[in-house]
Amino acid sequence: MRISNYFLATLKEAPAEAVIDSHKLMIRAGMVRKLASGVYTWLPTGKRILKKVEEIVRREMDAAGALEGLATMVTPAELWIESDRYDSYGDNLLKFKDRKEANFVLGPTHEEVFTYTVKQEVSSYRQLPLNLYQIQTKFRDETRPRFGILRTREFIMKDAYSFHMNWESLEQTYKDMEQAYNNVFNACGLSFRAVEADNGSMGGKGSKEFQVLAPAGEDVIAYCESSDYAANIEKAPALPSTTRQAPTKELEKVHTPGVTTIESLVEFGKGSFEAKQTVKLVVVKGATEQAPLVALALRGDHTLNEVKAEHHPLIASPLTMGNPGEIEEVFGAKPGSLGVVNCPIPLIVDDTALTVSDFVTGANETDYHLFGVNWDRDVTEYQSYDLRNVEAGDPSPDGKGVLSLTRGCECGHIFMLGDKYSKALNFTVTDENGENIHPIMGCYGIGVTRVVAAAIEQNHDQWGCTLPDALAPFLVGLVPVNYHKSEVVREFADQFYAELPVKQEVYFDDRGERLGVALADIDLIGVPYQFIIGEKNLNNGQVEFKDRRSGEKQLLTIEQAKVKAKELLLNYVSK
Amino acid sequence: MRISNYFLATLKEAPAEAVIDSHKLMIRAGMVRKLASGVYTWLPTGKRILKKVEEIVRREMDAAGALEGLATMVTPAELWIESDRYDSYGDNLLKFKDRKEANFVLGPTHEEVFTYTVKQEVSSYRQLPLNLYQIQTKFRDETRPRFGILRTREFIMKDAYSFHMNWESLEQTYKDMEQAYNNVFNACGLSFRAVEADNGSMGGKGSKEFQVLAPAGEDVIAYCESSDYAANIEKAPALPSTTRQAPTKELEKVHTPGVTTIESLVEFGKGSFEAKQTVKLVVVKGATEQAPLVALALRGDHTLNEVKAEHHPLIASPLTMGNPGEIEEVFGAKPGSLGVVNCPIPLIVDDTALTVSDFVTGANETDYHLFGVNWDRDVTEYQSYDLRNVEAGDPSPDGKGVLSLTRGCECGHIFMLGDKYSKALNFTVTDENGENIHPIMGCYGIGVTRVVAAAIEQNHDQWGCTLPDALAPFLVGLVPVNYHKSEVVREFADQFYAELPVKQEVYFDDRGERLGVALADIDLIGVPYQFIIGEKNLNNGQVEFKDRRSGEKQLLTIEQAKVKAKELLLNYVSK
Repeated sequence: MRISNYFLATLKEAPAEAVIDSHKLMIRAGMVRKLASGVYTWLPTGKRILKKVEEIVRREMDAAGALEGLATMVTPAELWIESDRYDSYGDNLLKFKDRKEANFVLGPTHEEVFTYTVKQEVSSYRQLPLNLYQIQTKFRDETRPRFGILRTREFIMKDAYSFHMNWESLEQTYKDMEQAYNNVFNACGLSFRAVEADNGSMGGKGSKEFQVLAPAGEDVIAYCESSDYAANIEKAPALPSTTRQAPTKELEKVHTPGVTTIESLVEFGKGSFEAKQTVKLVVVKGATEQAPLVALALRGDHTLNEVKAEHHPLIASPLTMGNPGEIEEVFGAKPGSLGVVNCPIPLIVDDTALTVSDFVTGANETDYHLFGVNWDRDVTEYQSYDLRNVEAGDPSPDGKGVLSLTRGCECGHIFMLGDKYSKALNFTVTDENGENIHPIMGCYGIGVTRVVAAAIEQNHDQWGCTLPDALAPFLVGLVPVNYHKSEVVREFADQFYAELPVKQEVYFDDRGERLGVALADIDLIGVPYQFIIGEKNLNNGQVEFKDRRSGEKQLLTIEQAKVKAKELLLNYVSK
Repeated sequence: MRISNYFLATLKEAPAEAVIDSHKLMIRAGMVRKLASGVYTWLPTGKRILKKVEEIVRREMDAAGALEGLATMVTPAELWIESDRYDSYGDNLLKFKDRKEANFVLGPTHEEVFTYTVKQEVSSYRQLPLNLYQIQTKFRDETRPRFGILRTREFIMKDAYSFHMNWESLEQTYKDMEQAYNNVFNACGLSFRAVEADNGSMGGKGSKEFQVLAPAGEDVIAYCESSDYAANIEKAPALPSTTRQAPTKELEKVHTPGVTTIESLVEFGKGSFEAKQTVKLVVVKGATEQAPLVALALRGDHTLNEVKAEHHPLIASPLTMGNPGEIEEVFGAKPGSLGVVNCPIPLIVDDTALTVSDFVTGANETDYHLFGVNWDRDVTEYQSYDLRNVEAGDPSPDGKGVLSLTRGCECGHIFMLGDKYSKALNFTVTDENGENIHPIMGCYGIGVTRVVAAAIEQNHDQWGCTLPDALAPFLVGLVPVNYHKSEVVREFADQFYAELPVKQEVYFDDRGERLGVALADIDLIGVPYQFIIGEKNLNNGQVEFKDRRSGEKQLLTIEQAKVKAKELLLNYVSK
């Protein structure tokens, strides 16, 4: 590609609203432009990367035996009413009427459409299993689109839906898709982890997320260095690392004026105890009429895992904090002085908080705390539950070491859905015995546009993008110095370019810009292999070669340079 | 592809609502399914064809130097308000509000978005010309979606927009794109014509349609066998083939009770004149206050060309017929007895009607006609204009022969737009002299989903689709007879399949269906080259080969069959 004919659109500055690096770089590198909140136009450089991701995804889906189809973005509301998600999906589901006042939605996901479509065609066990996918534009009307391309409203997804006669068949396809997903992220050249995930509102039996590792990722991942355990922190079970010791202290009520946080409580103790020897109370709304409020007890230094809490039958989902006025009325004490002794509402204690003895907690009396508190001696009515987020150093749930934490961008998600949608849409097939059953389903998503952003989030430096070869917008760059002024350079560069194969992967900067501008641009968009062609070097029979990612430079003979560029390009397309 | 793992979804019957062949066949061949009016899901067989069209389009666009980007389907209403199309585009523009009550549209076309995007980046003549394209899903909320995939509401289009400093530059790109379009339709293997077209509401200087020829096409094309002239009938100038003769008859008023049509008038004349010796009047609404009604005179056997009429400054656009009550009031006669003598409203006479002498026309008195009427003697106040549709045998406008008529499906359209959108969106660039000018634009569309339907409309027979190789869903088919029952057949077929390259293009029917079903399916979806593997032939060392399009069958030796299948597949992918 001659860059004089290209639409580079690089910028020196990113807009002020861009906070994370991928957002800044995708704007600066001329990959995307914002058209409206969460709605982005892809310029050619961005589209080149997007296309590479799409091609890798398509190749691996085809290899896994998934069949490509294409549903529509505009979807009749009826299907969403039938699956009972028309209201429950919330305002992220964009609803509208057509000219005939018929109700439609812009599809944010396609379980309904694919279940409906397959239902029309499949009636016998002989026709299953079936695994259909599409690469398609979707729309979710997010309240707060953010992080540039990581969380947009309009986005491209690869979504697949599989249909089975039984769980064994689903498990086989699920395993094949897991392998295909590993292949996709490996082929993209990304560092990622497949982690166990919470199923959320999708229901079903199991799910895994594919997290592209990056410090700015929205998700926290717990993983074990000494085994292959990895899970989203939302899901990772928190195991106590110790067992409870016998009580050694007497219960004592202490006046603690103004002490309303764990921090101030520890300070008040002047070194006599640490935060991990305290137990705090979080009051949330209950799920039942009998218990409109529920108290959750956690070790003072731990954080509540909202997703886990929402799974408890007594706790309202989505998790909602109790109202301070109500809490004060029920406890007769201000929040900040609450504790586990004589708790007036149902008490759910985190498993790890239960291993603490001789601890400090609120006295349920404003400005007082209890010291030397012990479970089962001072507190007898409670349930135990895993309520907290794991922390680095916690035991790995597989018993094979300890957990570390890292951050990731969720770019893929595979689910065993079960019969939720086949039931909702009344889709049955006849099994070998002539019985009608609801097929078991799986669903499998990859955020294609998000992969591009996550890849840049993971692969960049101070000069710009350092994407792996598989995703770089161009593989090989030629930067002639003084292209318009030096006839020697121009003739050589034109000839070099003319001799190269796979020209669509060649970034030939024939604009004649100043060298500084040319080098800044090629580093910004992240061309991995750069040949800088200057008159002085040429006169010595040499061309400078630069590896974008390592930053290493070396002088090659003209012949070496030509061979290297050709090899790089031919190897690239033969992959 | 082993068809036992595929989603074939063929049907014996098409739904009753399917009228045209491509619609019937696309449903029966399991290519698409209707999800809502004008909204279709693509099943794997359809998607395979769609992908082939997309790949051809992308390849030719890239080769023509167009740069691929991707805009969004959800588009802010502001841009459409700015271009003044928010209201004027009509109800085909689907409007909606997001959760924050901001106004959006589902993009039916993207002149606004691309002009806006380029405006943000381009300010100097050095950055032009620029030609950007996308392959993208669009939505037009048609009142009456029809003809299956030929006129849907959600569809895929390749649309390109080019930006230029002057008309010469646009003309160069327009020419390149015309060539690229020719390449696309040739590569698809379709019979088509590039025809001159009316610019319609797009404005601008010139445009051409790419019409895929098919009897069920919505468009009529006039073309010259002895030259390369071709135009949409909407646009083709109608030239008189004769000149007017001098009057020979006197004007005579004749009582013609009950004669209100040309047909009954000719019948009344009992052979004394033909329809082409009559002149009829069509009364339409006027464009000006001075003339709320306008009379159009056409030869009795000719049809009014609405598009041409709409271009006349006195005629309202869109063309609207006069109201019968109003007409009777103004003329003092019923419609059916109207004529050109003493016409009480402005009279516009078709150029060809003006070449008739001694003709018959209504008397503007109910149940009376005038015979022996002559222009300039009996009618003096009129304007002449080209108002009629051309007919087969009319002179070609290029003077090189006569016109023939055929029908086509418009699958591509290229426009010289001019500065309509750059002006509307206030997009200026600085030219070499430092002056600000509005760039000149072109736009170029291909209806990607429509190409699939048009291709089938053009290429089918009583058994199903006969698509050209380039678009066939699979290139080569293997049909083993009694696959599940005959071990000889199964072993040979499995081995044959195992040895083939490019397996994604092989339709291997390993379902073990009855032979009649298997052959009906493979013919229905239209696999061009079929190898039918039966035990009896195998025992003679032979395999039957069938050419789907010609229907020719021949027996090949096993070795010949293998070589042929391999050659077909390898040639296919090397293209």
